[in-house]
Amino acid sequence: MDKATEEMLVTYHELNGGIDVLHECPSPLEFMRYVAKNRPFMVRAGCSAWPAIRSWNVPHLRTNLRDTPIKVAITPYGNADSVVRSASDGVNYFVKPFEKNEPFSVFLSHLLGQNPDQADSFVRYSQTQNDNLRSEYVSLYEDVEPDIRFASIALQREPDAINLWMGNNQSTTALHRDNYENIYCQILGSKEFVLLPPVETACVNEQFLPGATYNACMEIIPDDPSLKIPSAVWDPDRPKESPTRFSHLSRPMRVTLHSGDMLYLPACWYHKVSQKDSEEGICCSVNYWYDMDFDGTFHATNAFVRNMAWTVLEEHKSH
Amino acid sequence: MDKATEEMLVTYHELNGGIDVLHECPSPLEFMRYVAKNRPFMVRAGCSAWPAIRSWNVPHLRTNLRDTPIKVAITPYGNADSVVRSASDGVNYFVKPFEKNEPFSVFLSHLLGQNPDQADSFVRYSQTQNDNLRSEYVSLYEDVEPDIRFASIALQREPDAINLWMGNNQSTTALHRDNYENIYCQILGSKEFVLLPPVETACVNEQFLPGATYNACMEIIPDDPSLKIPSAVWDPDRPKESPTRFSHLSRPMRVTLHSGDMLYLPACWYHKVSQKDSEEGICCSVNYWYDMDFDGTFHATNAFVRNMAWTVLEEHKSH
Repeated sequence: MDKATEEMLVTYHELNGGIDVLHECPSPLEFMRYVAKNRPFMVRAGCSAWPAIRSWNVPHLRTNLRDTPIKVAITPYGNADSVVRSASDGVNYFVKPFEKNEPFSVFLSHLLGQNPDQADSFVRYSQTQNDNLRSEYVSLYEDVEPDIRFASIALQREPDAINLWMGNNQSTTALHRDNYENIYCQILGSKEFVLLPPVETACVNEQFLPGATYNACMEIIPDDPSLKIPSAVWDPDRPKESPTRFSHLSRPMRVTLHSGDMLYLPACWYHKVSQKDSEEGICCSVNYWYDMDFDGTFHATNAFVRNMAWTVLEEHKSH
Repeated sequence: MDKATEEMLVTYHELNGGIDVLHECPSPLEFMRYVAKNRPFMVRAGCSAWPAIRSWNVPHLRTNLRDTPIKVAITPYGNADSVVRSASDGVNYFVKPFEKNEPFSVFLSHLLGQNPDQADSFVRYSQTQNDNLRSEYVSLYEDVEPDIRFASIALQREPDAINLWMGNNQSTTALHRDNYENIYCQILGSKEFVLLPPVETACVNEQFLPGATYNACMEIIPDDPSLKIPSAVWDPDRPKESPTRFSHLSRPMRVTLHSGDMLYLPACWYHKVSQKDSEEGICCSVNYWYDMDFDGTFHATNAFVRNMAWTVLEEHKSH
């Protein structure tokens, strides 16, 4: 079975190259060809004409949002949703951030290092992924497109969620995958993606780890009831640490989005995301999540590939 | 591993229903959505306006083709490309038909049972699949479309082959799969397809059988050098014979094309094809083969699913 897995990885990479860089948005048909292949592309300056690109900056955001309550994710090191070994019990957990409502003005001061409370130097990230651009950030919504036209036409649906992400270069999102077709638009600062196709599931060393959540003091509190979450333990930026016997066959794809760039991140691709601040010291993106199709061949075979990866790696362990 | 295979089959069928029946040809974008899902559809009367539908009949074909030499596939029972146990050595072979050039007029007489040579009652089928409509049958080519417009636009390529199929109800094509996107157009008579998605590879009991070819006396002659060909041994029309332990999870889809109907048969779908004669006693179809895309996720994962099926079934055998 190792042979079949290796063959799949080698075949995939022999037949697929780097990421396509387009210079204008695709037509719905052109987009659908990428969806059919489950392959990413970037559109250089794809959202550069949006009002948000011209008008969003620190003074504008401060004036626009004032003290609107914002749900903020807080972590000790900017490690939102990541695997952490607990100092107290030595167990690896998949740890979610502490979540807190803060007035936008306070959140922004923290991001800019103008922290009014010296005792609280934890890393903040606004990253709720719950359609927040049409709820807590709704006053900014008119500055972006209400949908990604080519995607809505091709997929025959409206976006399920439009999410605003605001943070600074301290935050990194660990390698994970989502069941969504994702269009990612960079507004302020830049964002660096490491992308792995879903066939590489045997490379990323997914382990079923207990979930936990940071408390206000940044202590790791195991979830109760405990639920095991498949968590990628291998980091393509530290390839020698915690690899599987297939990790060396991974071919991570690296993409940097600058202000005005757009990325199609296909359903179920693993992605790790880090960021660089704008000159003002913040980073801001908007992404559109479209429900993926679960019918057809993709989902069923993809789930099979993932199940087999878990089985094959587990068997080896038990020998 | 059995569990993962079963889960894939059950999940696939929970999320996918029967075949879509359209009443006009799809747009390129609509077609691409089916390609993306690797799902078939039928277009009722999709090619009914073609000149071939009005003009092709026995007198027309006889006048048009006269004694043009035609490559004819000859088998004892109409079993083109099928698994047969050899009487002489008891071995199962994947047997290809005897091929012979005959004047079209002679071939047609055979089809119609107006056989001039009573000693030769073997079953004939014109089925070369080598772009024969643009070579030996080129005089009929102007009566059909030079391509399937929605498919050529969507896939960004011209058909790799346009094949004419002419036979009668004695011929059946055994269950197999092709690496092509296939558009099948029924001209005379009707054709019955049994369709199985590529995820069902563990159901069809593919065995690596030695190849062989019928000689003029309909004896099975093993190929030299011998090449083992993966051959589906399970027949969805006789589900109790030669099943695997996954065959009961197969959900064969049955589609009948009448004159003027069109079928999209997606890449790598297993299909078994039988036919019913027109009133004149023949059956004729034209199909367009488009090269499938080997990049993207589909081919690599699909090959993995097939490899795993072979491995899992082989392992069981050796226990």
